[in-house]
Amino acid sequence: MADLIIRGGRILTMNGTGIDEGVIVVDSGLITFIGKNTDERADKVIDAKGCAVMPGLINAHTHLPMTLFRGFADDLSYGDWIKKIQAAEIKLTPADVRSGAYLGILEMIRSGTTAFADMYVHMDEVASVVKETGMRAALGYGMIEGINEDSDSKLKSRVDFARKWSGAEDGRITTMYAPHSAASCSKEFLVKVRELAAGNNSRIHIHVLETEDELHLMKKRYGMCYVNFLNSIDLLGPDILAAHCIWLSDDDIDILSTKKVNVVHCPTSNMALGVGISPVPRMLEKGINVALGTDGAASSGSLDMWNEMRMALYLHKLKDPRSMTASTVLGMATVSGARALNINAGVLKPGCFADIILVELKKPQFTSPNIIPALIRGCGCGVKTTIVNGKVLMEDYRVEVLDEDKVIEDTRHQTL
Amino acid sequence: MADLIIRGGRILTMNGTGIDEGVIVVDSGLITFIGKNTDERADKVIDAKGCAVMPGLINAHTHLPMTLFRGFADDLSYGDWIKKIQAAEIKLTPADVRSGAYLGILEMIRSGTTAFADMYVHMDEVASVVKETGMRAALGYGMIEGINEDSDSKLKSRVDFARKWSGAEDGRITTMYAPHSAASCSKEFLVKVRELAAGNNSRIHIHVLETEDELHLMKKRYGMCYVNFLNSIDLLGPDILAAHCIWLSDDDIDILSTKKVNVVHCPTSNMALGVGISPVPRMLEKGINVALGTDGAASSGSLDMWNEMRMALYLHKLKDPRSMTASTVLGMATVSGARALNINAGVLKPGCFADIILVELKKPQFTSPNIIPALIRGCGCGVKTTIVNGKVLMEDYRVEVLDEDKVIEDTRHQTL
Ligand SMILES: [Zn+2]
Ligand SMILES: [Zn+2]
Repeated sequence: MADLIIRGGRILTMNGTGIDEGVIVVDSGLITFIGKNTDERADKVIDAKGCAVMPGLINAHTHLPMTLFRGFADDLSYGDWIKKIQAAEIKLTPADVRSGAYLGILEMIRSGTTAFADMYVHMDEVASVVKETGMRAALGYGMIEGINEDSDSKLKSRVDFARKWSGAEDGRITTMYAPHSAASCSKEFLVKVRELAAGNNSRIHIHVLETEDELHLMKKRYGMCYVNFLNSIDLLGPDILAAHCIWLSDDDIDILSTKKVNVVHCPTSNMALGVGISPVPRMLEKGINVALGTDGAASSGSLDMWNEMRMALYLHKLKDPRSMTASTVLGMATVSGARALNINAGVLKPGCFADIILVELKKPQFTSPNIIPALIRGCGCGVKTTIVNGKVLMEDYRVEVLDEDKVIEDTRHQTL
Repeated sequence: MADLIIRGGRILTMNGTGIDEGVIVVDSGLITFIGKNTDERADKVIDAKGCAVMPGLINAHTHLPMTLFRGFADDLSYGDWIKKIQAAEIKLTPADVRSGAYLGILEMIRSGTTAFADMYVHMDEVASVVKETGMRAALGYGMIEGINEDSDSKLKSRVDFARKWSGAEDGRITTMYAPHSAASCSKEFLVKVRELAAGNNSRIHIHVLETEDELHLMKKRYGMCYVNFLNSIDLLGPDILAAHCIWLSDDDIDILSTKKVNVVHCPTSNMALGVGISPVPRMLEKGINVALGTDGAASSGSLDMWNEMRMALYLHKLKDPRSMTASTVLGMATVSGARALNINAGVLKPGCFADIILVELKKPQFTSPNIIPALIRGCGCGVKTTIVNGKVLMEDYRVEVLDEDKVIEDTRHQTL
């Protein structure tokens, strides 16, 4: 007797061809069968008729509790935005971070995100909310040198965080080291982080070239560009999650490709802050694994990965309509995200985590001769059911693992 | 006894300050009162607690039946896209256009659009669907010279269309003359259209400078730029609806401003086809009335004006985060749209059409210290109730005027 069977839906495996009216069997958090028919029985059966059944979306770069700052510092230059946000962040209590994390996870469950890579402060609160809600996450405790503790205490507390949470909840929670950027951390500090991460077999999540200013700063500080500097301290590799990557030369792209760095593209945030357009089509051509992230809601206004896919699609079409397709952005939000987070997900096949979403197709906005382009046409309101690790977090639009009204009321800023 | 009272909501009038827990009274299709309290009673009372109550959105440029082509010709260059679409359009029957119009109006009702300006073929079908569903529209029967009838028969049939539908349904339907563009119609033809429109007190809806090629073509054909050519035949004025307006010089912008032309910005379509970025912030600085449109779903993939507002917001922030705000794009989709369509709507005040929507605010994605930026964060799935001319077309997410399943099934391209 399996745990769960999902039957009757249109399966988009993201791994070869799809299956119409297919069956997925889930046991102990994993997909054990996918095909047209099965004799297997299960404790729970979900009827997916009229739905697309697909891998959950993966948000590969965010700062979850910044949901508290949605719409709080809009319409400012990048410099003024940073100042306003940092002044507000400094006042955040662990309880604030906790309520922002609940709010973010609620938004993610509703919009079909099943895993995310995070970087922020008071991360024990975030981890505890991830644990409680059943979400999957790769958590990095943010590090900016010169704020709060001295550098050694900072590193020690980050090691403690990794020890406590790495592999928790049967591996549903993993950790990364998260130095904020090469601009806000010294070379010595980054070298120590590199050693720790290698020793713990942990990935490193870092911002890379979000602004042109950082490019100039690194050239001035080290006499080489940002990417060459990272390379010089061995901070480029398949275990690196590099968010943004906007101000890249062609040589930089070649280096990122050779070193198999994972890049996270955050188009809405980049547009919102006016910091530039990441050369994603060129990176894809060069075989770089480019995942997709919303960044914090303080810049993007949303943690909804459908919004983000739509933005990535049209931002690059602006330059050339042939340079980005709906299938490509969907791959970035699933297959590439899983590879960036080092999780066995992003596709539907036996042996993978049962991180699965159902999208209700019988809506006017999805009516099309081609399903994938039609899916990428707005926010995640078509997501009907969200399953992580075989557990149903939302079924038929009803979130099972959170008291939605309470979560919204508990945020400091009341909407009404 | 009034027809309708909406009470308890957070009213965004788009006309000065909002009202918390306000009351709106509707009678004979018009708003008769708006304020904190009333002794008035009504046949129907809508409880708007927890909702924003705001003017319905106005889609100032679309081709409604192109919902049939959603996702049908994506990822092509502009030239290849046009070819593929035109080859498909030529086969469209009146019945096809009718089913595409139903699908489009369903999508608009669901996402809170209460009026639209359209331009397409077989427009009697579109008009009949508008009549039946209770939507408000300004309909233009498209004219490209050299396709189907000769130019004189074409003009005559357009005059017949205008006579039949102008002011129909107590003014809910108006008509415009719709020459496709100055590139696809001759000077002589456009001069005749100008005379007819002036004689019938009708507006003209036309594409202007969607592509750079058109700029070169007009210079070659007439020895002057597109805008100067239109000016030379008196085709610029407050009765002109000019869609796109991408390839404008500063002088062109000054002329459009002096002549009080209404511009319709279609950011998603422009990005999808890679045709350029309209200089909207500069036009707004010069006092031009810039409305917002989705264009056809064949390019934008969506008729949802919330998607369009979000795209307009971030597209212009890309260049400068201070150059576009959520309030500005909301004004484009309401106040400016009403001005462009010449309808007494787009704001909530006594004497205006009761074109009103309710947006449910108690959702994670709307939770913010500032309501307007939070509203512009995805598609229109938060729209709970849509009212046009005082008639409730959708209440509590249930569309009252269409059989939703039938509309979706009747489109030629079945999603499932
Ligand atoms: Zn970030
Ligand atoms: Zn158009």
